[in-house]
Amino acid sequence: MENRAEFNGNLSDLTYGFVGLGLMGGSMAKAIKKFILKSGKILACTRKESALKDAKSQGIIDDYCVLKPENAESIKKMLGECDMVFVCLPPKNTIEFLVEHKDNFKKGSIVTEIAGVKTGVFKAFPLGMDGVNFIPGHPMAGNEREGFAYSDENIFQNRNYIFLPYEDTDPKALDTFKEAMKSIGFTNLIVTDWKTHDHKIAFTSQLCHVIASSLVDCAEDTQVTQFGGGSFEDLTRIALINAPLWTELFISNKEELISHIENFEKSLDKIKNQIRNEDADELKETLTEVRNRRAMMAQFMKKK
Amino acid sequence: MENRAEFNGNLSDLTYGFVGLGLMGGSMAKAIKKFILKSGKILACTRKESALKDAKSQGIIDDYCVLKPENAESIKKMLGECDMVFVCLPPKNTIEFLVEHKDNFKKGSIVTEIAGVKTGVFKAFPLGMDGVNFIPGHPMAGNEREGFAYSDENIFQNRNYIFLPYEDTDPKALDTFKEAMKSIGFTNLIVTDWKTHDHKIAFTSQLCHVIASSLVDCAEDTQVTQFGGGSFEDLTRIALINAPLWTELFISNKEELISHIENFEKSLDKIKNQIRNEDADELKETLTEVRNRRAMMAQFMKKK
Repeated sequence: MENRAEFNGNLSDLTYGFVGLGLMGGSMAKAIKKFILKSGKILACTRKESALKDAKSQGIIDDYCVLKPENAESIKKMLGECDMVFVCLPPKNTIEFLVEHKDNFKKGSIVTEIAGVKTGVFKAFPLGMDGVNFIPGHPMAGNEREGFAYSDENIFQNRNYIFLPYEDTDPKALDTFKEAMKSIGFTNLIVTDWKTHDHKIAFTSQLCHVIASSLVDCAEDTQVTQFGGGSFEDLTRIALINAPLWTELFISNKEELISHIENFEKSLDKIKNQIRNEDADELKETLTEVRNRRAMMAQFMKKK
Repeated sequence: MENRAEFNGNLSDLTYGFVGLGLMGGSMAKAIKKFILKSGKILACTRKESALKDAKSQGIIDDYCVLKPENAESIKKMLGECDMVFVCLPPKNTIEFLVEHKDNFKKGSIVTEIAGVKTGVFKAFPLGMDGVNFIPGHPMAGNEREGFAYSDENIFQNRNYIFLPYEDTDPKALDTFKEAMKSIGFTNLIVTDWKTHDHKIAFTSQLCHVIASSLVDCAEDTQVTQFGGGSFEDLTRIALINAPLWTELFISNKEELISHIENFEKSLDKIKNQIRNEDADELKETLTEVRNRRAMMAQFMKKK
């Protein structure tokens, strides 16, 4: 397998392709249009024709086709024209699409996807993709909304982007991809392997969604927020959750996620016992340590 | 016990007293100065003389005395001049101060305190306070900072205020107090009893702080936030915790808090098992229900 191919061209003049034009795909397309594009263009396919029509009429994309089986030829043609393709579908659909179209990408193009869990992607493509620069990635941005209508070119400002190149990925292709992501606002660019990714993401993202969901689930009633002062609001914003997507993410990364849940349960149990035993000195020590750790963690967080 | 006394006067012309001038006392004093005061004045006592000097030089307070045993007479004199007194000390100190000075407040004045747990206050004053309108309260606002230097008159905008009057509290005094809190920004004014308060607050506030602290505590390292996209940041902002204060709050409300922690553990366990068993349908149902509940809860949250 020739898992690389020399990449040439200026970012501003490339043809970009989007497969999936929801909140993430739409936001990335808008950001590329706004922050990168000069003489280049953007092509897109997604399942919802209305999103494509909106994107076209807003001048974000130049051409499109609807993502459906009978359009296989048009999709193939589109992929053959793109220098950089972003597959922004739900995780399982992402893998299905990549497997189906792996021979249809333009020779030497950069192909990426944004699935929140990478095990499936790397199981399907353990050695990369023939003739193209396939570099999975994970833009650490988004919000609780769904669909192109809520897409926003500014959600990537000061965010983290995780790149998951193969051992033999062409460094030039990776640099080009990084440059593009920097141009649309990402500031902290991390390169790692998929096992590390799935382990860390299970903590920073999936565990947080499980906790937020559990907190809403255990509320006695929905009026309790009358007694709130902002803490519950902050802890449960992400409980406005896209249920099908997160069901898929949780289950596809279940081993990592469950191990983090269990670690969290241990810490919760420790603090609970310090409270139950009225062990003020130990509790104060734990909370002081927590405060210090959280202050140290702030260095890699989005600057506000 | 005569747990009421007619309250007279215009908010703008009163003499306000602050006992404790940290983040909360300082913010309330600044807000009263900015949004209410005309010919009235603000007196303050707190342990840190530097805070008093700063507040005086900034024109927030008109006079002060340092809160220390040898100043008992000056403090007594100050309390005797105030129409509305806010005791904004840590919970235990609040009760100690109120017990020591219960006979020193001006006849007919409104006296309040802002402790985050009310059991101790109501155990010390089961029937109120003689000759004054003692109305415990809880401003549901604040942030992770400490001290007068970080106080800010705008942190109360669109927040909830909980009032805990006695059965025989003078309605006119309560209305005056409410009007004052509305004037400085609070929009959702709730009247309840202390048992309900301590039960609800254990959920919306203390449980959230325990969860945020546990989440930071269980992190493998402080670099993991490189992989974060905002969720972990939101869930752990309040883990920048004031350790002595929250140790006191957790332990003084431990029965309510532990019962909420246990309910939360049950919900967490339910979701964990749905993930472990790869029960996609049930998990999706749980998350859909969570999303709907959270959307309903938003009506009582701070409007942004």
